[in-house]
Amino acid sequence: MNTKRIRDYGIKIGKYPTGPLNKITDVPGVTVGHCTIDNDRHKTGVTVILPAPDNVFVNKLTAGVHVINGFGKTCGTVQVQELGTLETPIALTNTLNVGKAADAVVGYMLEKCAADGVGCASVNPVVGETNDCGLNDIADRCIGEKEVREAIENASADFDEGDVGAGKGTSCFGLKGGIGSASRQVTLDGKGYTIGALVQSNFGAASDLMINGQPVGKKIVEIMKKETAPSDKGSVMVVIAADIPLDNLQLNRALRHAVLGLARTGSYVGHGSGDVVIGFTTANRHGTGETFRTITALNDRYIDCVFRGVAESVEEAVLNSMTAADTVTGYSGTVRRSINEFLPDVLE
Amino acid sequence: MNTKRIRDYGIKIGKYPTGPLNKITDVPGVTVGHCTIDNDRHKTGVTVILPAPDNVFVNKLTAGVHVINGFGKTCGTVQVQELGTLETPIALTNTLNVGKAADAVVGYMLEKCAADGVGCASVNPVVGETNDCGLNDIADRCIGEKEVREAIENASADFDEGDVGAGKGTSCFGLKGGIGSASRQVTLDGKGYTIGALVQSNFGAASDLMINGQPVGKKIVEIMKKETAPSDKGSVMVVIAADIPLDNLQLNRALRHAVLGLARTGSYVGHGSGDVVIGFTTANRHGTGETFRTITALNDRYIDCVFRGVAESVEEAVLNSMTAADTVTGYSGTVRRSINEFLPDVLE
Amino acid sequence: MNTKRIRDYGIKIGKYPTGPLNKITDVPGVTVGHCTIDNDRHKTGVTVILPAPDNVFVNKLTAGVHVINGFGKTCGTVQVQELGTLETPIALTNTLNVGKAADAVVGYMLEKCAADGVGCASVNPVVGETNDCGLNDIADRCIGEKEVREAIENASADFDEGDVGAGKGTSCFGLKGGIGSASRQVTLDGKGYTIGALVQSNFGAASDLMINGQPVGKKIVEIMKKETAPSDKGSVMVVIAADIPLDNLQLNRALRHAVLGLARTGSYVGHGSGDVVIGFTTANRHGTGETFRTITALNDRYIDCVFRGVAESVEEAVLNSMTAADTVTGYSGTVRRSINEFLPDVLE
Amino acid sequence: MNTKRIRDYGIKIGKYPTGPLNKITDVPGVTVGHCTIDNDRHKTGVTVILPAPDNVFVNKLTAGVHVINGFGKTCGTVQVQELGTLETPIALTNTLNVGKAADAVVGYMLEKCAADGVGCASVNPVVGETNDCGLNDIADRCIGEKEVREAIENASADFDEGDVGAGKGTSCFGLKGGIGSASRQVTLDGKGYTIGALVQSNFGAASDLMINGQPVGKKIVEIMKKETAPSDKGSVMVVIAADIPLDNLQLNRALRHAVLGLARTGSYVGHGSGDVVIGFTTANRHGTGETFRTITALNDRYIDCVFRGVAESVEEAVLNSMTAADTVTGYSGTVRRSINEFLPDVLE
Repeated sequence: MNTKRIRDYGIKIGKYPTGPLNKITDVPGVTVGHCTIDNDRHKTGVTVILPAPDNVFVNKLTAGVHVINGFGKTCGTVQVQELGTLETPIALTNTLNVGKAADAVVGYMLEKCAADGVGCASVNPVVGETNDCGLNDIADRCIGEKEVREAIENASADFDEGDVGAGKGTSCFGLKGGIGSASRQVTLDGKGYTIGALVQSNFGAASDLMINGQPVGKKIVEIMKKETAPSDKGSVMVVIAADIPLDNLQLNRALRHAVLGLARTGSYVGHGSGDVVIGFTTANRHGTGETFRTITALNDRYIDCVFRGVAESVEEAVLNSMTAADTVTGYSGTVRRSINEFLPDVLE
Repeated sequence: MNTKRIRDYGIKIGKYPTGPLNKITDVPGVTVGHCTIDNDRHKTGVTVILPAPDNVFVNKLTAGVHVINGFGKTCGTVQVQELGTLETPIALTNTLNVGKAADAVVGYMLEKCAADGVGCASVNPVVGETNDCGLNDIADRCIGEKEVREAIENASADFDEGDVGAGKGTSCFGLKGGIGSASRQVTLDGKGYTIGALVQSNFGAASDLMINGQPVGKKIVEIMKKETAPSDKGSVMVVIAADIPLDNLQLNRALRHAVLGLARTGSYVGHGSGDVVIGFTTANRHGTGETFRTITALNDRYIDCVFRGVAESVEEAVLNSMTAADTVTGYSGTVRRSINEFLPDVLE
Repeated sequence: MNTKRIRDYGIKIGKYPTGPLNKITDVPGVTVGHCTIDNDRHKTGVTVILPAPDNVFVNKLTAGVHVINGFGKTCGTVQVQELGTLETPIALTNTLNVGKAADAVVGYMLEKCAADGVGCASVNPVVGETNDCGLNDIADRCIGEKEVREAIENASADFDEGDVGAGKGTSCFGLKGGIGSASRQVTLDGKGYTIGALVQSNFGAASDLMINGQPVGKKIVEIMKKETAPSDKGSVMVVIAADIPLDNLQLNRALRHAVLGLARTGSYVGHGSGDVVIGFTTANRHGTGETFRTITALNDRYIDCVFRGVAESVEEAVLNSMTAADTVTGYSGTVRRSINEFLPDVLE
Repeated sequence: MNTKRIRDYGIKIGKYPTGPLNKITDVPGVTVGHCTIDNDRHKTGVTVILPAPDNVFVNKLTAGVHVINGFGKTCGTVQVQELGTLETPIALTNTLNVGKAADAVVGYMLEKCAADGVGCASVNPVVGETNDCGLNDIADRCIGEKEVREAIENASADFDEGDVGAGKGTSCFGLKGGIGSASRQVTLDGKGYTIGALVQSNFGAASDLMINGQPVGKKIVEIMKKETAPSDKGSVMVVIAADIPLDNLQLNRALRHAVLGLARTGSYVGHGSGDVVIGFTTANRHGTGETFRTITALNDRYIDCVFRGVAESVEEAVLNSMTAADTVTGYSGTVRRSINEFLPDVLE
């Protein structure tokens, strides 16, 4: 893990301005925490996105899920799609750890609600995953309650990217992937709003990698003298946050634009990918009280900026997930090299 | 066509009170009109539901579509599902007339917008259908611009049911089907609201017909000494209207409850059925103006009354579509008998 | 738990013949096992449906998921919907235990694959749930690896119904719900096939209960002098099995007919319900080998019998889940009475 | 209209080989025909894709629809999605002409079935559209039965691209769009198969245009000294054909990859776009006869080549739709310039 970002190489993705951190946490109230397991057997972890500082079970967020390709085990999607609400932090981890992580999120929310004096007999944990079995002994599910709690406690606005947390063991375009993030700012009615993306990148064949349209993957394959990564097990989890007033229909439409960002990095959305987008807006929280509630929604005629903001921030988040990652050697000896070994040489 | 309704036989469906007319037009502003073609060759027509008295292209309605079984040709669904808006009247007609009816709705809206000084280069006509080929020479598409205009001009709150308009040639449970309607009233926060349903009924095998749980279909088959109708081509179009403040997610959820009402009349939703639900609320109209708009939405915890209101009104609308229909002899000599020939004898 | 079934009261649902056991296990190869937790604190458990006797990870089944109303936590749905395959047993348990049960299913499949010499670094556990917090101290998640294994080991063709396994603590129409099952036989091209349903029933308001069209719920409420159960947290899990050759599109269409059976028992599919249908056919297993595989699919023009078989068996399975359940007193003193206390008196 | 293609500029999209024509008609049996209306008032037309040389109502094709963004009026989607079959040619035209074109397709199929002695009382016309109101007086719906018949009669394997048929009046990235096509060949089990795409391109802002990763749009905007086209009304219709044995689930998954090709040309899938993908395979035709039919399906583990073939051919089809289009001046004086005025200068 390092702090390199794609902009450090002079690459600017898209045309919208970024937020101050150029991370999902530029959306006010959003924080991210990791717990990383890095030992001889394990290169894995858990990354938690806290969508708001308060009790989100009590004040649920307007949320949605879009499945780009569903060869994945993300849990909690049924209820988010039905009710349009998110009532827990979002946890990302490795494929086989979803059950244990989901149980840990349940435990955390029960405890939090008890502490807040709120009854809670039903809670819908949202846990996403990609498969890090290339570097991590995945069958030994090492992410439990302790690790999830640690990630939650670590949560902050200025979180690390790269080979940390749920990104410790992932691979992207045959190189080291990981956690990456980016954000975009838009102005509506004279007021600034933010869209942010966070990805757990674990997809792509090396030769397909594109950076801002440049076919750097082909050059990397020539240098490495091989096509390193099979694309068939690759996945990417995408989390989108925004503070823009949207209703559920609009938010769902926005989430469907994440694939545009993936496409521009070179993704072909392989059969084996579990490419899932989970998103929320911090506007339009659901309280418990009144018979009717008021939703503020962007006029559809201005929504294109949200769509573009999603696409741009996802594209850049993927690239940041790679530049922030160091070379990692897995438990079986497999090496995933950092893209920084090839940059800036393969750029024009 | 007559004015009998299932309540005239002492049958009360569900537990919610009805609106004053017990029709979809109890939802303020909704009107319905028919144009019926009744001659040697044709038993068919068009029924138009006007969702509001003003220009709905300018002030679009919050709307949704739910496909129960999609062996049908309803057009306009893609845009309604994407944007959650309805911008034309809803027309119902026979299967092969959808194209011509859609073009007529386009022509009507272009003219209306021109008259209102509103630019309109794109409009999404919503046209549903069932197949009346048992009684009507359907290949000769006789519903054109003139007929659709006539139905629109005929629109009123106290419209006819039974073998009129798009229900002139339909069959239901082996008997004469047609247009039927019903409504339910609910109270929220001390204020009354209305849910209404209109159906074009053209489905079901005679032996399956149930009235309020009573297996009257079996008795009718005994009396008729035959199972009269094949179920495989049967369809039902359902239109739901409400004045309850709902957002699109809630409205879509409500529409999915229409099938409960169909099930209670004996439907098995056959392979050949095009069972499609189109619905709208007159609350939360979309204007064109501001950057942000305000949506009022029912708190989810009170939404069960909407679900039940949909199910109850659909069930009763199907039964009314039958009781209001007279016996009709089709162009090929096929006879569809009115259920009134068997009621009240087959009821307990 | 007892062995009463609705047919013991002379009630015959639908018109198709049942299989020999009139259970989901009439579908050859399907077995069901329970582990029941019945102590002062817990009335809960886990029920496992084994779709085939062999390693289903290696020979995946053609499968689908249909969400009737998604206020639920069922996991594994994303991948089943994307790939159309089931690769684990299906486990049903209580709402808050999904994570732990999912992890247990993962552990079981990893072990089974290791024993069979099959590599497995990714597996998609399918776990459904309803909320038994009325009778069970649900926050204490007591279903773990041991309990899931026990249920799997207990699996047999002639399994128990009622207040067992995942049905130990559920409530249905204000009375005791539980696990119920039924099956239907159809003949195609001269050969017999079977459709089976299993439900975990936990839904409905007492006054809505219908048995074969009879409004027995209203009578029960009169006798009990109260409407006992809130409907808002109610859910039902439905598992459908068949041995009929269907492709994924057809299977998904068939699953959508389960709601017809629920409707006929009186369900209004409340907001708070997690009504999810998981189904599979034992025909058209996916092996790993050839470049092309052959699927046998029923001609659509004969598929109505499958739709009806699903609806009939679901309706009867719900009723059997109630008749096989004894009165249960929960940890907080809440009593859910067996429907047998009211039958046959409330029947005509 | 000219015969320039993007490969004539030395640009090679993707890595798979093309078919002999590099058009959708490389899929055996597929033909395409146009009828172009080019006069002072109208720059519009209709393009028809005939999926097979025989009567497709009798021998239906395995087909699917995927909606990328549904601000569009495509009709016929409900039934294609439900049954997974295509039973008519696919017609593309302008937005307001969908109804008349659909009626014309119905008339054509009724006549064809009558000629073939096949009963046909229900047929599902599939008609897509984009809005050419920038160049065409769209309110005057000039595409009727005559024009659709003419397009069908004109159908051949070596059809024209560019500003012809339904592409006569469209705009793409602020330049002239139109009809474009491309194909890809893949080898499975030693045998060659073909995937083809045809687009009606009418989307995109000039500055977003990318050609094989190169940001040529920015250069074109500089040369033109303006951003020419609003993106909000832009749409693209995509038709995918293949002769690969796929089942419906697989075909639908493949169609979802079309957006990757659009993304690589610079699309941001604007709010106002009706981006709809209609696809079919000529394998696994549905006959009418037997109780069971046999489907050949590609093993999922080899399906990535189909996904990539779809993405590559869509990307190239969009570019071909532009290079084959000449500059067109619309009825209101609006000029859409051909991209050939800027190529090859803006390429590296």
